[in-house]
Amino acid sequence: MKYRLDKSRVFMTFAKGDSINKTFETFAEVKGVGCAWLNGIGALENPEIGYYSLEDKTYHRKLFKGEYELTSLIGNITMKEGKPFSHTHITFSDTEYRVFGGHLFDADITAAGEFIMQFGSENITREMNPGIGLPLWCLEESLG
Amino acid sequence: MKYRLDKSRVFMTFAKGDSINKTFETFAEVKGVGCAWLNGIGALENPEIGYYSLEDKTYHRKLFKGEYELTSLIGNITMKEGKPFSHTHITFSDTEYRVFGGHLFDADITAAGEFIMQFGSENITREMNPGIGLPLWCLEESLG
Amino acid sequence: MKYRLDKSRVFMTFAKGDSINKTFETFAEVKGVGCAWLNGIGALENPEIGYYSLEDKTYHRKLFKGEYELTSLIGNITMKEGKPFSHTHITFSDTEYRVFGGHLFDADITAAGEFIMQFGSENITREMNPGIGLPLWCLEESLG
Repeated sequence: MKYRLDKSRVFMTFAKGDSINKTFETFAEVKGVGCAWLNGIGALENPEIGYYSLEDKTYHRKLFKGEYELTSLIGNITMKEGKPFSHTHITFSDTEYRVFGGHLFDADITAAGEFIMQFGSENITREMNPGIGLPLWCLEESLG
Repeated sequence: MKYRLDKSRVFMTFAKGDSINKTFETFAEVKGVGCAWLNGIGALENPEIGYYSLEDKTYHRKLFKGEYELTSLIGNITMKEGKPFSHTHITFSDTEYRVFGGHLFDADITAAGEFIMQFGSENITREMNPGIGLPLWCLEESLG
Repeated sequence: MKYRLDKSRVFMTFAKGDSINKTFETFAEVKGVGCAWLNGIGALENPEIGYYSLEDKTYHRKLFKGEYELTSLIGNITMKEGKPFSHTHITFSDTEYRVFGGHLFDADITAAGEFIMQFGSENITREMNPGIGLPLWCLEESLG
């Protein structure tokens, strides 16, 4: 992974073999990023994705073997249990251009990955929401 | 919905039951936002989506019953008939990780929604384009 | 295509018949943009998309005839061989709301396209990576 810091964001290019979420988290940890918005495209292999079942309060997972175009990555960096956590959803397309997607556990870049991480001014912290079963953003302001 | 204003943008977390477009529009109306760019992920249920037919000059609609991962939301806030209007397109994935999508009429958040709204400096206004049959952005500058 | 410059970004609305990547590149060339991040939605026809095969070191291409909703466009502008180059990945949905996608060669807007281009402070240059067979971002900083 190579990067260029540019004011309150960073342009990143990932190389073959880089794990997407792991690389975001390593960067965030090294640079002290506790809140950011993520966007990206590229190509990847063996993505493990999931969907969350509210009924089971658990993620169902599937590993997609093979290489795919990364058609979209959208997500964010926040603080979970004291460390930067990368929460990303992706879509990816196969050799027939069909698109699959879900919550990204992780995937390895193949040809390249091109990403932008836009930093927030203050950390956002996740805390377990018992009703949902997931660590959710703790923000205070509401319209009500 | 809870939020944190951060310079010229806002990080938003939507809770179970929040309607996506309706919540964006309520926030925009309360805060006086007439131009913004939207991005987000999460989980939702019962999305009503559509595609626009230029031939019929009408949206064809479909309600997808059930729960899905929100794999991407991209869109914007502009002014339509004097009020903030949320125009968003989404993709979402089912329990087999197949992805569907289109123009979002609206959908309810299930586990959570994580969004960023980046404010423009000046309002963008939509006006009906009779040739297209839709209210389109009115901008003045062109390269020609 | 009409646009509004807004600090370090531009909101753009594309009209029926505008070619997506070609219009981004023309704008970037006229305005001297050598680094930017792209996001957008809209409706398009006859997209030609592809996926890159690392084994063949070539793109496989397919032209999708007909009209589709543009459910997501994510990409960037960088400098390739001395000129602005638009690298974008898209997803799009058909009349059954199924989503297809990949690397976008180009497509024509139908009803409208709504885009944001966020400018970087300095150009990013692409150079051919012989191992991958593609012109990749040249950035210098790494964590190692």
